[in-house]
Amino acid sequence: MKKLRKKVYIAAGYNTISMGTGRSEFNPKKERPGLEHYIKEAGQATIKQINDAANIDEGVIGNFMAARFNKQANLPGFIPFIDEKLQWKPAISVEGACGSGGLALVTGLKSVLAETADAVLVLGVEVQNTMKAIYGADVLAGAGWYKKRKEGHAYFFPGQFSNRAGAYYEKYGMDYAREGLKRWFVNAMENARLCPTAQEYESKETDLYKLYDKFNPNGANFVDNLTVLDCSKVSDGASSIIMASEEGLIKLGIDKKDAVEIVGWAQVERNITHEPENLTELITIKKAAKEALDSAGLIIDDLGTIETHDCFSIAGILGVEAIGFAEPGKGAQFVADGHTARDGKIPINTTGGLIGWGHPTGATGVHQAVTIWEQLTEKAGDAQIEINPDRPYGMTINMGGDDVTVIAMIYKKAE
Amino acid sequence: MKKLRKKVYIAAGYNTISMGTGRSEFNPKKERPGLEHYIKEAGQATIKQINDAANIDEGVIGNFMAARFNKQANLPGFIPFIDEKLQWKPAISVEGACGSGGLALVTGLKSVLAETADAVLVLGVEVQNTMKAIYGADVLAGAGWYKKRKEGHAYFFPGQFSNRAGAYYEKYGMDYAREGLKRWFVNAMENARLCPTAQEYESKETDLYKLYDKFNPNGANFVDNLTVLDCSKVSDGASSIIMASEEGLIKLGIDKKDAVEIVGWAQVERNITHEPENLTELITIKKAAKEALDSAGLIIDDLGTIETHDCFSIAGILGVEAIGFAEPGKGAQFVADGHTARDGKIPINTTGGLIGWGHPTGATGVHQAVTIWEQLTEKAGDAQIEINPDRPYGMTINMGGDDVTVIAMIYKKAE
Repeated sequence: MKKLRKKVYIAAGYNTISMGTGRSEFNPKKERPGLEHYIKEAGQATIKQINDAANIDEGVIGNFMAARFNKQANLPGFIPFIDEKLQWKPAISVEGACGSGGLALVTGLKSVLAETADAVLVLGVEVQNTMKAIYGADVLAGAGWYKKRKEGHAYFFPGQFSNRAGAYYEKYGMDYAREGLKRWFVNAMENARLCPTAQEYESKETDLYKLYDKFNPNGANFVDNLTVLDCSKVSDGASSIIMASEEGLIKLGIDKKDAVEIVGWAQVERNITHEPENLTELITIKKAAKEALDSAGLIIDDLGTIETHDCFSIAGILGVEAIGFAEPGKGAQFVADGHTARDGKIPINTTGGLIGWGHPTGATGVHQAVTIWEQLTEKAGDAQIEINPDRPYGMTINMGGDDVTVIAMIYKKAE
Repeated sequence: MKKLRKKVYIAAGYNTISMGTGRSEFNPKKERPGLEHYIKEAGQATIKQINDAANIDEGVIGNFMAARFNKQANLPGFIPFIDEKLQWKPAISVEGACGSGGLALVTGLKSVLAETADAVLVLGVEVQNTMKAIYGADVLAGAGWYKKRKEGHAYFFPGQFSNRAGAYYEKYGMDYAREGLKRWFVNAMENARLCPTAQEYESKETDLYKLYDKFNPNGANFVDNLTVLDCSKVSDGASSIIMASEEGLIKLGIDKKDAVEIVGWAQVERNITHEPENLTELITIKKAAKEALDSAGLIIDDLGTIETHDCFSIAGILGVEAIGFAEPGKGAQFVADGHTARDGKIPINTTGGLIGWGHPTGATGVHQAVTIWEQLTEKAGDAQIEINPDRPYGMTINMGGDDVTVIAMIYKKAE
């Protein structure tokens, strides 16, 4: 359990559009904006919210696979590309597959705690529409132990989570389980339609429940136990925040009403070479959520909203169980009953999550933090939920690989 | 300038062999140990030096291009693969091209400063003999701005530093300059022959000066202004250290006589999309060396030994000038005069550096720290130098890309 030795805040935030199929701007046949564009857009937009880029002491980039999607590494070198006032300042890039954004948050947090920075620009980015999805699936397989790739499905990661879904169906009943997954999908789409940067913002489908029922898991086309509607998006995008100390907020000219405080966190790693012992449990998420709550001295009932890592709908349901809102096997019911909807007991993924908003892999952890910052400071626009004053805390859960790298963080409106 | 808010030590260290052409164990036609092997060997060997892996709070991996050389990402997941007692603990991977190892040092340092850890396992690794050098050169080009790759040489990075060498020749004279480069090469080989893990340990050449003279820069075979002898090795390898607070040293059961203290550091980033303004100056290294000295309250004459990033011999000479041992243009003379040899004024790269010891890219920054730790605690075996008590400090300079990502650190024997 890691107590925070000083106060750390999120002072600003921004998401680019989550770009990919579904967005009218997206033309897979035309050249699209590259890595450089997304880094610059997200970085500059966040810097615009503070008084002067010179007050930023350091930059962090979270990214998963620019090395293969864009053949580009040495990503710290793009921090001064955002703003010339960042030239000669410290910069770093961090990686933990789809948990890279969460690791970027942790890295910024530690710099403030270490007192080597009073303000850190923390950015996550991924541009993965540079290749077809089937080739991209091989790249994304690097989030698991690549050496065993040959035993896996062509769509490696969907295959992993399809196996988890299959185990859940077997234990608790497929029809029962898919009612929960369906509601997860519907919530995701409905929330995304309220958020202009979401990949599914323009979705026009009138009956989402019916749409979901039209698709049946079919191993011949995709994977055995999930359909493409259970799957997060292939997305290009970047998100960024500025993390700051108390002194940093003042230097940046940010009022506390526009900031959230980070009050707890956890970072938990599972051996990537091990198969999960129990396919129906996300044990690393379970440990991270508990550790983060403990580190903040909070209980689950203190949480008012959550962004959790639904790379697949089944990861959403299993996440609800792992965080502790439902007993094993009861998560599908909890979701089907509407408790995770935006007007439910615990609104989850209020701008659509990875399935509705999109999943630019290395950016996702930062995107989650931006969303919580927006919700707790009432900047979420049409997607704004009402925060129950008795449950004022937000949480993010970001996962890399199949329950391998997990980062949890807890936030409250700054006071 | 970043003052360290508490004492941080290096408590243990280990280098695997730098594996590649030159080593008798290396057979390019047979399957070689993979990424997993090197991570495990280096991690376990360092852990063996402390009382119990359970006392390690966190793990960091520095790596550049496992994504392409090994198709593997989510590297934090290999921390618990080293030792099961690291399961569920925080882990992270960091990247900054060939500066990835130095960024791993910074990350461990910050965790101790942040008081989120009392002991951190910091590891660097690269396994790049998975492809032929010409394909590998395309991978390594990701350390520069890949978008301009098409304008570059087939051997992109050698091309960049060949241009720097060419500019130096033009300004100060080629014959003069190559006398310095020659001595740099000879020092590297002679030092490597004293270190059993060095890639050139088994080198038997009787007249290294003559050997160097046999090669002439020839753009037709390699690059215009450098030969393969001016070039660091293609290497597989891993290095690791354990960083600890004062309390951490006690928990780990490490006596101060076996530890070094980190007394200063700097991390400086140059915009990767900019061409260097002056090809004969490594301005980022210059800034980093000065900042690190300033942060420790030291001057250059306090330094007794240095590990600097000689990815090419010209980077060694320019590094000597950038650190401040010689005026612009005088570095070649300084080196040719033997001042950087192991019995010189300022012994540099005492186990061979990147040209003699080897350059497993993501591991190099950590390897440099291991070497300084060994020298200052008298564990360097046949490569041991005598540390002048009036100049008791060691420094490491690790660079990613063409003077883009630079990390400098200063050490002294713990007291």
